[in-house]
Amino acid sequence: AGHGARKMEDYGRFLAFLASSLLVGFVSVILSLVWVFHYREGLSWDGGPAEFNWHPVLIITGFVFVQGIAIIVYRLPWTWKCSKLLMKFIHAGLNTTAMILAIVSMVAVFDFHNAKNIPNMYSLHSWIGLAAVIFYSLQLFLGFAVFLLPFAPVRLRAALMPIHVYSGLTIFATVIATALMGITEKLIFALKNPAYSESPPEATLANCLGLLLVIFGSLILWMASRPHWKRPPAENAKILSPIGATPEGTEAESTMTNSSNADKSDLRSNTEAARKQNIKFDEAGQRSTM
Amino acid sequence: AGHGARKMEDYGRFLAFLASSLLVGFVSVILSLVWVFHYREGLSWDGGPAEFNWHPVLIITGFVFVQGIAIIVYRLPWTWKCSKLLMKFIHAGLNTTAMILAIVSMVAVFDFHNAKNIPNMYSLHSWIGLAAVIFYSLQLFLGFAVFLLPFAPVRLRAALMPIHVYSGLTIFATVIATALMGITEKLIFALKNPAYSESPPEATLANCLGLLLVIFGSLILWMASRPHWKRPPAENAKILSPIGATPEGTEAESTMTNSSNADKSDLRSNTEAARKQNIKFDEAGQRSTM
Repeated sequence: AGHGARKMEDYGRFLAFLASSLLVGFVSVILSLVWVFHYREGLSWDGGPAEFNWHPVLIITGFVFVQGIAIIVYRLPWTWKCSKLLMKFIHAGLNTTAMILAIVSMVAVFDFHNAKNIPNMYSLHSWIGLAAVIFYSLQLFLGFAVFLLPFAPVRLRAALMPIHVYSGLTIFATVIATALMGITEKLIFALKNPAYSESPPEATLANCLGLLLVIFGSLILWMASRPHWKRPPAENAKILSPIGATPEGTEAESTMTNSSNADKSDLRSNTEAARKQNIKFDEAGQRSTM
Repeated sequence: AGHGARKMEDYGRFLAFLASSLLVGFVSVILSLVWVFHYREGLSWDGGPAEFNWHPVLIITGFVFVQGIAIIVYRLPWTWKCSKLLMKFIHAGLNTTAMILAIVSMVAVFDFHNAKNIPNMYSLHSWIGLAAVIFYSLQLFLGFAVFLLPFAPVRLRAALMPIHVYSGLTIFATVIATALMGITEKLIFALKNPAYSESPPEATLANCLGLLLVIFGSLILWMASRPHWKRPPAENAKILSPIGATPEGTEAESTMTNSSNADKSDLRSNTEAARKQNIKFDEAGQRSTM
């Protein structure tokens, strides 16, 4: 009974975080549209400022919101009955969507700059933003090759999983930092008479948007780093092994939020320990939260 | 022998990360001084631009570099023979230093703005920066009250430790994001003829500084989130208990990078599990890396 009550409360807490992050993410997208349609030139693809405007809208929708959801998609308790392989496809699909939107949004800026003879790639925003897109694409490609395709050996998957998790969260944080630089740049460049420093309504709106992005990122990072909110491993191993050939415990065991008690040098005993953990995990009724 | 070799290699890897982050942090401080002395008005406290210049120098030195070191100070293997209490004082002392430098650097900006009749607190940089300083001060105050003073019960310490770790890392990332916005603002405002978009040497230097801050942050976050680089707990428990009244395993067990297999609802068995873990940890010869 005590366990059940704890799980219920914890499930409620997860849902509260999820609802908050969805709300904050959704409001961020809305604010980016209000910014662009109410205060700026709207959206079109004509080499003018309305083409530039695709940049903030697509970055906030794709590179922040969709990427954030992709990060926590394994943690949704109602997906734990789905196969791990299906969830990997959803994770990869969301990240691919985010990458495409990020690239289109970059094309919009380059197009706009070229039409107006504004230099490209001179700002810190552009340097770090381009680096983030490149690392994000690499991460997606490597993740696909190692964790989705059935060729990588268990040992390699286990070794790369902590790096995959760390890189994913670090790139996500960097993307948000880059968005904040972008908002700053745009407000300084676009607001003249009244200037940014006179705090016109547009400045307040865009500042609030930036604040919401930080809150969204913080919520996602909290959810992604709670060990007890992880997808319980191993139960679908039998279904998956003909395709992925990986006992799930191996990958799940070696993320950022786990495995301090395991000696990484001995992979076999590590996996063994993970499997024992999983049994305990299921015994504890974690899945009763579904 | 296998264990020993693994530990040696892992110790070497930790040292490589530590040396890299110290180098990157050190070069960042140097670049901020070059920026201020070679391209700007130097440093003084006269209400002019040379007073403003304390802002980037003190933020990068204190709020980024010193804070980063404070975050990983428990992980330096040669400190594992020191008492946990001493390390807590060093951790708190470094964070207090960082906070003071951050506050002085904010005073420099307000002073400069007021002397020049520039409005305060209008930019996204200022909003998020002020929020970061407030949360950082709260974190320091709460950390002092709960983890350093001997009054908080074990249960409370264990419950707050994951929040302390998460908040610390999130605030650190937010501070770096704010620094990037600050560099962006300063370059746009200060560079006229040639403008920022014409990429004069000063722009390249400050962009490189921003890039180094991101690399520094990434290195610190990697070191702080490797479970096997944590300070091994419990060994000094006997020395500490009269002062801190806390078996160290309790706190150490519940950080961001740990404890996925423990059922948090049952603190007693949790602590027990942590202690068993610690024994294993010491058996595995982790401390032989010293």
